[in-house]
Amino acid sequence: MKALVYHGPGQKSWDTVADPKPIDPTDIVVQIDTTTICGTDLHILKGDVPTVEPGRILGHEAVGTVVAVGSAVSSLAVDDRVLVPAITSCGRCAYCKRAMPSHCQATGGIGWIFGHLVDGTQAEYARVPFAETSVHKVPDGVSDAQVLFLADILPTGYEVGVRNGQVKPGDVVVVVGAGPVGLAAIQTAALAGAARIIAVDVVDSRLEHARRFGADETIRSGGSAEEQIAALTDGGLGADVAIEAVGIPETFDLCTRVVRPGGVVANIGVHGAPTTLHLEDLWIKNITITTGLVDGTTVPMLLNLVRSGKIASELLGTHDFGLNDMLAAYDTFAEAGRHNALKVVIRR
Amino acid sequence: MKALVYHGPGQKSWDTVADPKPIDPTDIVVQIDTTTICGTDLHILKGDVPTVEPGRILGHEAVGTVVAVGSAVSSLAVDDRVLVPAITSCGRCAYCKRAMPSHCQATGGIGWIFGHLVDGTQAEYARVPFAETSVHKVPDGVSDAQVLFLADILPTGYEVGVRNGQVKPGDVVVVVGAGPVGLAAIQTAALAGAARIIAVDVVDSRLEHARRFGADETIRSGGSAEEQIAALTDGGLGADVAIEAVGIPETFDLCTRVVRPGGVVANIGVHGAPTTLHLEDLWIKNITITTGLVDGTTVPMLLNLVRSGKIASELLGTHDFGLNDMLAAYDTFAEAGRHNALKVVIRR
Repeated sequence: MKALVYHGPGQKSWDTVADPKPIDPTDIVVQIDTTTICGTDLHILKGDVPTVEPGRILGHEAVGTVVAVGSAVSSLAVDDRVLVPAITSCGRCAYCKRAMPSHCQATGGIGWIFGHLVDGTQAEYARVPFAETSVHKVPDGVSDAQVLFLADILPTGYEVGVRNGQVKPGDVVVVVGAGPVGLAAIQTAALAGAARIIAVDVVDSRLEHARRFGADETIRSGGSAEEQIAALTDGGLGADVAIEAVGIPETFDLCTRVVRPGGVVANIGVHGAPTTLHLEDLWIKNITITTGLVDGTTVPMLLNLVRSGKIASELLGTHDFGLNDMLAAYDTFAEAGRHNALKVVIRR
Repeated sequence: MKALVYHGPGQKSWDTVADPKPIDPTDIVVQIDTTTICGTDLHILKGDVPTVEPGRILGHEAVGTVVAVGSAVSSLAVDDRVLVPAITSCGRCAYCKRAMPSHCQATGGIGWIFGHLVDGTQAEYARVPFAETSVHKVPDGVSDAQVLFLADILPTGYEVGVRNGQVKPGDVVVVVGAGPVGLAAIQTAALAGAARIIAVDVVDSRLEHARRFGADETIRSGGSAEEQIAALTDGGLGADVAIEAVGIPETFDLCTRVVRPGGVVANIGVHGAPTTLHLEDLWIKNITITTGLVDGTTVPMLLNLVRSGKIASELLGTHDFGLNDMLAAYDTFAEAGRHNALKVVIRR
């Protein structure tokens, strides 16, 4: 089969490799019908994730068709259409039992294994471990484009941003960073009843996207973002929830400064460096800071919202490619700003 | 009357000052029967809290007897015995209505006003603003020594440590710092059902106190604290909850390293400096970090536990003084280590 293979920092190619087969009894193999590229894949290609070894097929999001099942698999069959999510869950360990498969102990303490610790989904086929406790059957009437972003980015925005941020009806929510994951947070914050969603970014085109996804106010980040946010909140005290969707010290620090006493800072960003936490100001502020990798435990709920038309998840896909145009898809996604791209949709 | 007056950094004296009287209709005046000294008072005397102006009477914890009531006060009367807590609540603002009087908007956005923004309790008498929504009547049969520490330290350990830390039955809880507030956290973590409480401190005598207050394990902090804690937890993954009760960067950092994926770091410590937050490790760890000033909303609940004998709050008081020995009480408390003192009890 053909697959996007990582060959070390800065190196990837669209290679011919061996077809995957079930190895463990709980495995399935799926034909990849639709996949995408994540910012994390770009981090891997920069060499930022040393646990990814050369020779690894990348990708951790897909909609596919079951083509083979392991001997222990009883609830999935060949020809079933499934969502393969970013997080694999054994369903048995202490972390899976507490609804936190992001740290599944059966997969090495980290539920994100596709395109990381095992071969991923940017290929014609993929082996899916712990299939019955990980994949989701896709209902009839839901398109690949509608369900694809439930593999990672939509539950990441919801679980790590909105849910961890404890967004509740009436809240003022600031989302710093209006890239795809920030937009997913904006889209689901509206569902949680936010009274006002304020998007902050450095790029005007992203702020335009933010309005399409549900932001009520947009702020070009810079010296006065803090003052502008204060002016939009009761008594100038700040936002109820500040969601960090960038992953650099400056944006994290901004979130801690714009949240009101008693508010929540929910970090979604993937950080490569430490930050300064101003505990000399924050110790007395009764704030909560959360971090997290997605669990994907809300995928069934989000799927219901997609089916009922409350979330237009397909809006995240702005550019389409064929599977054999994988390298072109990478080129476009790597320069998303120039192409005004959010996520790419890569179809068989 | 006599009162302990702050005269600027490093300067205090036991002065003769004017007796307080009700000013606002919601005020009462109490005769101070029993009071104490807080670590915060020592911070003020070092000049660390510039919002305290010279001339201020210090102290924010007391049991007293009502001697005068304002014209709007209907549920309190002269001769009532009351607990005057550290936090004042107007009962009307958005923060008081969401059970967070730590940030009461009627008192300048901070519920801690005694010995800070208004005259405090280290005196023969004190004026108590917003009395009906702030003080607690003390039931018969409860001694001053039993109820005094419910003014601040016990609810601080419980609310800011145990409750913010989301301690639940079966948890492994690490408490870093076994001074009075750490001991209050240890004492109330046991009530929340912790399976194992691990106290960490640099001083052996404090670790002995920790065992008296309910710690199951004690660790002298140093190079191997992290490894020793890992060895006491499932799979070496770390504690469910790490409570910071010191207030320096090193102990906060230790808490972030000994908490398991999905766990909570609850900061109680009063910090005077920023710290480095290792988001490059923590972003993926699904942890929650909380900070906070006490609200005191759990005082009635804690009082029930004191009355039923489940909390021996009087254990926190190790040294007794008369009100006129205030300066000697300060000397002892300022050198608590040398005197093996926890809290001082200062009686009329």
